[in-house]
Amino acid sequence: MPEYHSQPLIMAAQEFAKLPGIGLKTAQRLAYHILNCSEQEVEQFAMGILSARRSMKLCKCCQNICGSDECEICGADNRNKALICVVESPGDVSAIERSGGFDGVYHVLHGLLSPMNGIGPEQLKIKELMARLTSADEVIMATSPTVEGEATAAYLSRMIKPVGVKVTRLAYGLPAGSSLVYADDVTLQRALENRSEL
Amino acid sequence: MPEYHSQPLIMAAQEFAKLPGIGLKTAQRLAYHILNCSEQEVEQFAMGILSARRSMKLCKCCQNICGSDECEICGADNRNKALICVVESPGDVSAIERSGGFDGVYHVLHGLLSPMNGIGPEQLKIKELMARLTSADEVIMATSPTVEGEATAAYLSRMIKPVGVKVTRLAYGLPAGSSLVYADDVTLQRALENRSEL
Repeated sequence: MPEYHSQPLIMAAQEFAKLPGIGLKTAQRLAYHILNCSEQEVEQFAMGILSARRSMKLCKCCQNICGSDECEICGADNRNKALICVVESPGDVSAIERSGGFDGVYHVLHGLLSPMNGIGPEQLKIKELMARLTSADEVIMATSPTVEGEATAAYLSRMIKPVGVKVTRLAYGLPAGSSLVYADDVTLQRALENRSEL
Repeated sequence: MPEYHSQPLIMAAQEFAKLPGIGLKTAQRLAYHILNCSEQEVEQFAMGILSARRSMKLCKCCQNICGSDECEICGADNRNKALICVVESPGDVSAIERSGGFDGVYHVLHGLLSPMNGIGPEQLKIKELMARLTSADEVIMATSPTVEGEATAAYLSRMIKPVGVKVTRLAYGLPAGSSLVYADDVTLQRALENRSEL
């Protein structure tokens, strides 16, 4: 028995289903909600999202998304501009800021090297990173501990070291609050290798 | 430590957080996705939703949402127009159609009576239902088995019976595939009351 849905519902649900993590059922639920709203409310919703996208700029320095030419972090006086933390995406900046353990600045690559998916150095903000190195003492690689994250860190490290800037990497080890029993082999191996004196 | 998010991200996330069942974290995830899309893609998304809402009409007969003046079900030749199934929302029509067990037509109330929330008979499509009764033999109440659903069915039943039209209600009982152990008391009581001969 095919499902019966009206044309406006199918239209709205198709748009919502484009979003990541939104399946058909959720898309239909959201579409019903949208059709239940007044036309004015839906206008506000659609225009709000569109104008958010339109107002988006990349910080001229760190390439993070922001509403102006320079982001708050790059514009702040109390941040150490000689310490650059390289991350994959704007979400990583939010995560590190939330931890409260970093007072340097960032550089957002907007992706990771992935030859399989046709993403080479030109697709990432690597040129912009190299241009910032004159004022840098240390670059921290904070890409994810995945194959692509490691490869990108290794590639950048090979490019940055000849310039005479120190390159470091986030520590590997056990996540806080976790149980040894559930740690995977690679994590345990690295936690042993990088053990520190008490 | 307050979270650091750029202004465009906050704007987009606020819009997504208005949707039902979308919490702050999901809204931020969707906002990141939107800011990662091209402006053209976001335009298509926003305009798709808006034009779906704008193209929405209510069927002149059953009040279900549709893209034209009359919905497919009311316009179909093979449906029994004398058998009207009264439901709360367009989603209920989809659910009953999916079951494949109904060949009559529908009437969508667009809500349930709820004096606590200020929803009286005038806010629902009751006037439109009464106007259709001249051509009806039977009206099936298919509102949800909740306090408000029952109250709405009882109210409509009192209004329709004097017109001389038969009023029925969906059967109460055990859901198919369920286990007796997990059935609640009210469901079991009703399943006993409405037991049928084998």
